[in-house]
Amino acid sequence: MPLSMYQTSVPVFLHGFANLSAILDKGLAFADEQGVDPDALVQARLIEDMGPLSSQVQRASDTAKGCAARLAGIDMPSFEDNEATFPELQDRISRTVAFLQTVRPEQIDGSEERDVLLTAGKQSFAFRGQEFLLQHALPNFFFHVTTAYDILRHKGVPVGKRDYLGRR
Amino acid sequence: MPLSMYQTSVPVFLHGFANLSAILDKGLAFADEQGVDPDALVQARLIEDMGPLSSQVQRASDTAKGCAARLAGIDMPSFEDNEATFPELQDRISRTVAFLQTVRPEQIDGSEERDVLLTAGKQSFAFRGQEFLLQHALPNFFFHVTTAYDILRHKGVPVGKRDYLGRR
Repeated sequence: MPLSMYQTSVPVFLHGFANLSAILDKGLAFADEQGVDPDALVQARLIEDMGPLSSQVQRASDTAKGCAARLAGIDMPSFEDNEATFPELQDRISRTVAFLQTVRPEQIDGSEERDVLLTAGKQSFAFRGQEFLLQHALPNFFFHVTTAYDILRHKGVPVGKRDYLGRR
Repeated sequence: MPLSMYQTSVPVFLHGFANLSAILDKGLAFADEQGVDPDALVQARLIEDMGPLSSQVQRASDTAKGCAARLAGIDMPSFEDNEATFPELQDRISRTVAFLQTVRPEQIDGSEERDVLLTAGKQSFAFRGQEFLLQHALPNFFFHVTTAYDILRHKGVPVGKRDYLGRR
């Protein structure tokens, strides 16, 4: 049976969030063990003008809930982007996962040709559903999960590829 | 029409390599402009025990050609991992793209249930085709493309999300 739009989106995001959550747990444990301020780690970034760890988690959340909602043609929950601690980032992930779990396969399946208009700042990008999923949502989701991992790895947190891929 | 295994793999990799190639071009241009040794940038990494830029490109290449070959049930070309300059990394990408372009949709389509055995060091992981693509190959490919981007971004190269997503 060919891949469905649902299978290629929601379960992929859920798997990614489970892995991201475990990576964040390792970040918090590292801060505790090393006597590092965990809130400073939440603000860590790879370079001054790039989003910190908190932003990476927020953008992964936005990408996943935005993708599911746009493909399903439903409203998405709006979150405040005020997370500043590891528990708050975990809560952001939990709320995103809870929303994704309300979206049923039949709402997303068949959305290959659905028009999706994405607005970023002053620009708009028009996609068909399939192109939106494969050229925007999946690459963008993995970008932010990977960059969250890369920030923690850069700061010395002992995470490895197995954590990212979820082979526990 | 539902997504096919081919559409969800080879064109996604080709798009990713086009973007990665453009990102590497910006890295080389940055080195030239700033009087930085470009070969040192190819060896740059986020932390001592993580793979440098060259490894990230090599692993993106391995993931993409390995995915296409395993799903198609064909042999994959073996490359030496000896790239040490930007032109050599571009050549690695070109050789990977050339292989991907030889794989026809009908070789990959229908591979959803194909058994895929992945060996990493002493461990083996058994997947079905669909799970291999969605839980291993795509996340791993984007991991290495993003980490290549993150290394260059960390070193000050002026790349942005548009470069990564390929909105030129």
